[in-house]
Amino acid sequence: MQLARVIGDVVATRKDPGFDSIPLLLLQPIAADGTSVGRLVVAVDSVGAGVGETVFFVRGKEASFPFHPTEMAADAAIVGIVDQPRIFTD
Amino acid sequence: MQLARVIGDVVATRKDPGFDSIPLLLLQPIAADGTSVGRLVVAVDSVGAGVGETVFFVRGKEASFPFHPTEMAADAAIVGIVDQPRIFTD
Amino acid sequence: MQLARVIGDVVATRKDPGFDSIPLLLLQPIAADGTSVGRLVVAVDSVGAGVGETVFFVRGKEASFPFHPTEMAADAAIVGIVDQPRIFTD
Amino acid sequence: MQLARVIGDVVATRKDPGFDSIPLLLLQPIAADGTSVGRLVVAVDSVGAGVGETVFFVRGKEASFPFHPTEMAADAAIVGIVDQPRIFTD
Amino acid sequence: MQLARVIGDVVATRKDPGFDSIPLLLLQPIAADGTSVGRLVVAVDSVGAGVGETVFFVRGKEASFPFHPTEMAADAAIVGIVDQPRIFTD
Repeated sequence: MQLARVIGDVVATRKDPGFDSIPLLLLQPIAADGTSVGRLVVAVDSVGAGVGETVFFVRGKEASFPFHPTEMAADAAIVGIVDQPRIFTD
Repeated sequence: MQLARVIGDVVATRKDPGFDSIPLLLLQPIAADGTSVGRLVVAVDSVGAGVGETVFFVRGKEASFPFHPTEMAADAAIVGIVDQPRIFTD
Repeated sequence: MQLARVIGDVVATRKDPGFDSIPLLLLQPIAADGTSVGRLVVAVDSVGAGVGETVFFVRGKEASFPFHPTEMAADAAIVGIVDQPRIFTD
Repeated sequence: MQLARVIGDVVATRKDPGFDSIPLLLLQPIAADGTSVGRLVVAVDSVGAGVGETVFFVRGKEASFPFHPTEMAADAAIVGIVDQPRIFTD
Repeated sequence: MQLARVIGDVVATRKDPGFDSIPLLLLQPIAADGTSVGRLVVAVDSVGAGVGETVFFVRGKEASFPFHPTEMAADAAIVGIVDQPRIFTD
């Protein structure tokens, strides 16, 4: 999984029916110190994350697991909200 | 999923039969502000996207889900057309 | 999928038996204008592509779909030969 | 798999129930000489790795294999602790 | 698949039991001319590759196919030893 910050969402009227009523959030992947790294990700959300929160998200087919038995063509899902990342060493 | 702009298509007479009569669109992945990031993607389309539209696409085996029960050897599919991405914070 | 140019092949006497009599081609991924981008890929071929041709290839488990019911440990397969990529906008 | 150093962990009160009581460690991927390469990874741990140890981790759906029959939406798992990487040639 | 050179191995006393008695080799991905590209990969080996040899390896769940019916949490496997890569054009 990777760390990211929720920075917005995606409004899409026309989309695969599997995404109906599923939140589509915009994520900016981040480093441990909160700086942005890499490109934006559009992710489904199963944990109720909000804009500004730090989350970790999963890539791949596993993205639809939290919605079981619903299946959707998703490759990224927020699976946790980070209280704090703890770095003990680098 | 990732944001992209539809910039063209691919004409291919010889291809795996699974792609027969499936649109093959050329996508340029983009950042939230619309600038190009990364290399072109050839994607199947299940939502009727057109050239110039902003879409989000899925990578991996999930790309063939919208065509179920048809299966094809695709690893990228457009799954939604973006009305607007909304950035509330960075 | 991604665009690539077939630039050669791989000769391998010792290999997983699943690859016996399957062509192993060397691909150079390319941008829309034909310039090289990224590193070489070794791909199986199900459509009879030849050196110098522009193709699109699929990554992941889907690479063995065109050979069904034969299964092999492949993660890249040529699935179409491009007559022409058509760019209508950037 | 890739080499990484365990540098911390992630505290997450709200997360997908599949992660309950599963350690979530922060990994810094490394080169053979121990220098950092690439971005942080949040991984589940099935082998009891500790901060400061060098490990190898797996990406993708395989990440949940060591927890079978428990399934979780993980895409990275520590699967071994490295006594030493041995480079014989470059 | 990708080309790589075998440069060493990994000694790991504590690891997922699925890897018991499976060789874990260190691979340096290479370009067609043999120069190093990208980061090290830890791969399982099913074809008896040795240090210094040029191989091609597969990524993803397919990595455990050559060991069927044994399943392991591997995402990279050597599946062939390259006699020679043949470049006919660039």
